[in-house]
Amino acid sequence: MARSYNFSPGPAALPEAVLRQVQQDMLEWGETGASVVEISHRGPEFLEVARQAEADLRTLLAIPDDYAVLFPAGGATTQQALIALNFASPGQRVDYVVTGHWGRTALKQLATVDVNIAASSEDDGFRTIPARASWRLSKDAAYVHVTSNETIHGVEFRPAWGPVPDTGDVPLFADFSSNIASEPIDISRYGLIYAGAQKNLGPVGIAVVIVRRDLLERAGHPRADIFNYASQLRAESMLNTPPTWNWYVLGLTVRWMIEQGGTAEFDRRSAEKSALLYEAIDGSGGFYRNDVDPAVRSRMNVPFFLPDPALDAPFLDGAREAGLIGLKGHRVLGGMRASIYNAMPVEGVRALVGYMREFQARHG
Amino acid sequence: MARSYNFSPGPAALPEAVLRQVQQDMLEWGETGASVVEISHRGPEFLEVARQAEADLRTLLAIPDDYAVLFPAGGATTQQALIALNFASPGQRVDYVVTGHWGRTALKQLATVDVNIAASSEDDGFRTIPARASWRLSKDAAYVHVTSNETIHGVEFRPAWGPVPDTGDVPLFADFSSNIASEPIDISRYGLIYAGAQKNLGPVGIAVVIVRRDLLERAGHPRADIFNYASQLRAESMLNTPPTWNWYVLGLTVRWMIEQGGTAEFDRRSAEKSALLYEAIDGSGGFYRNDVDPAVRSRMNVPFFLPDPALDAPFLDGAREAGLIGLKGHRVLGGMRASIYNAMPVEGVRALVGYMREFQARHG
Repeated sequence: MARSYNFSPGPAALPEAVLRQVQQDMLEWGETGASVVEISHRGPEFLEVARQAEADLRTLLAIPDDYAVLFPAGGATTQQALIALNFASPGQRVDYVVTGHWGRTALKQLATVDVNIAASSEDDGFRTIPARASWRLSKDAAYVHVTSNETIHGVEFRPAWGPVPDTGDVPLFADFSSNIASEPIDISRYGLIYAGAQKNLGPVGIAVVIVRRDLLERAGHPRADIFNYASQLRAESMLNTPPTWNWYVLGLTVRWMIEQGGTAEFDRRSAEKSALLYEAIDGSGGFYRNDVDPAVRSRMNVPFFLPDPALDAPFLDGAREAGLIGLKGHRVLGGMRASIYNAMPVEGVRALVGYMREFQARHG
Repeated sequence: MARSYNFSPGPAALPEAVLRQVQQDMLEWGETGASVVEISHRGPEFLEVARQAEADLRTLLAIPDDYAVLFPAGGATTQQALIALNFASPGQRVDYVVTGHWGRTALKQLATVDVNIAASSEDDGFRTIPARASWRLSKDAAYVHVTSNETIHGVEFRPAWGPVPDTGDVPLFADFSSNIASEPIDISRYGLIYAGAQKNLGPVGIAVVIVRRDLLERAGHPRADIFNYASQLRAESMLNTPPTWNWYVLGLTVRWMIEQGGTAEFDRRSAEKSALLYEAIDGSGGFYRNDVDPAVRSRMNVPFFLPDPALDAPFLDGAREAGLIGLKGHRVLGGMRASIYNAMPVEGVRALVGYMREFQARHG
């Protein structure tokens, strides 16, 4: 058995160097005589892990000082609910731009506010992002919410679509779960960025919230202390016991990304890897198909379809035999999907493209 | 470097056999060619992990069929907030019995309901549990909430105090974070039980909620889909990406407890370990002190004090040199605390008691 190339959408492949470090530390970590998963989150050893992870994340993403960073347990969907509770008053207007499955899921977390769908590409099957000029934004909205990259539909805000949308005095909030750290981000354009860690930042079970500090003064909803971002910031994300192991693996992954060259280098690699894959699809004479508008094709998640769904199972079986896993598309879309996050080396994409050609030669 | 005896209150020691399994699986798990932390939560391999973990937990705790089990991300405090949202209407009365720090913290999660403190031992420093006859319960309460074991104050509902409180038609909800699986529980006496996993059930970052199914039909508050227990149950706790690695380690830990003899065996071990430690404290001629009413002394968390706080640092330093870690008391109480959950072998408690005698001989 050898390690496969793992194209899972999240939980996703981690850098092998990170896994080897985690493996080595599993019974005894540092000078503690215990695993990092067994020690107190309030002891000096773990506090240093947490401090270093934040410092490294600030370096990696060039986070300005007037932005706070939270490390909550769980995933991005929980943050979608907490955003409304923290930054909108009950019944207040919030603007949502829906460009795929996760943007639509976000709407289910908004039971007590007045949701305005400012734009949606649902009618065209989430293959585009509506032009900025067509968005119907509200002047009095608490925030505007976008999904920077749609993991399932493979749609990403790219420079070919346009610059980061200008929303005037209304802060722009963005779900960056599946493309954070894949290229430099101008965080000052956003009021808040959040991401589940399990794609580009590390393991599942922890998220990251980057928020402009002045926004934390908003009253929001009456809410549980544990749901209050300002309380969590005062408690350094330790209002209750945080997911320490996940935090530590996130820290190792962020450090690995810095050592690899940071977001500029991952920008270069993402361009190379995604170009290889889209060229293989577009150059297959229609055997493989990706229907997303080329201006907004995701560099992280590449959904593609075979000419006949009956070929899906043989494609997946052959892929697994070739050491390529995690390629099955999400159930809402079907087909295939290759997720090529920062931990996926270009060699993995070359192996996939080679397998795709070989499969087409046999079944085309 | 060797593994220490780890008395941390949570995150806490895990069984060494579990850590070795996790270490072995860290790069390649089963037939996947990937780590369990890297694979899809919706793939057949992880779904089997989740199914087996629930089946084993049902075996270990003898959970009746009319109770559902959820595996949410995060810790117990989040559940304290979700309980009110799921089972009480806005403004509805809820009854809380406060017997320590965590019961008091729970009150901060209840911004939108009418909280009645039915009983509290705060005035006596949380050294007792008020007699059942003194509780001022409300007839129309959504539920009555108790903390089965107070991790910081070392106070536990024990048979010497009385049977599981009868709350009539109002369901009894209990935080079992720090004593679940330490003895058989008659779950049918409770409407809901919840626990963070990081003490007796496995790693930090995941919790368990055991709830009588009929209660899930309550309307509760308007709330985000991700906060809705009934929605989570329909989605098998995968409304969004769950903390898969933490779930898998929980499963290994539960399986280990079954193999060790189950809750009857841990009941026996808990009795033995806690008796050893309380006897050492009570038999120290006042050098060591635990002030909790003997009828409700915790078998899981044993706080104790030295005659002079100036001895705390030397005690902790010497303990660490003797391979005994995690003994520093919580900042709200000071002093020492030994947490002796299921993964702590009796040898660890013997080593601690030996060290305590030796320290007293030098400083008494």
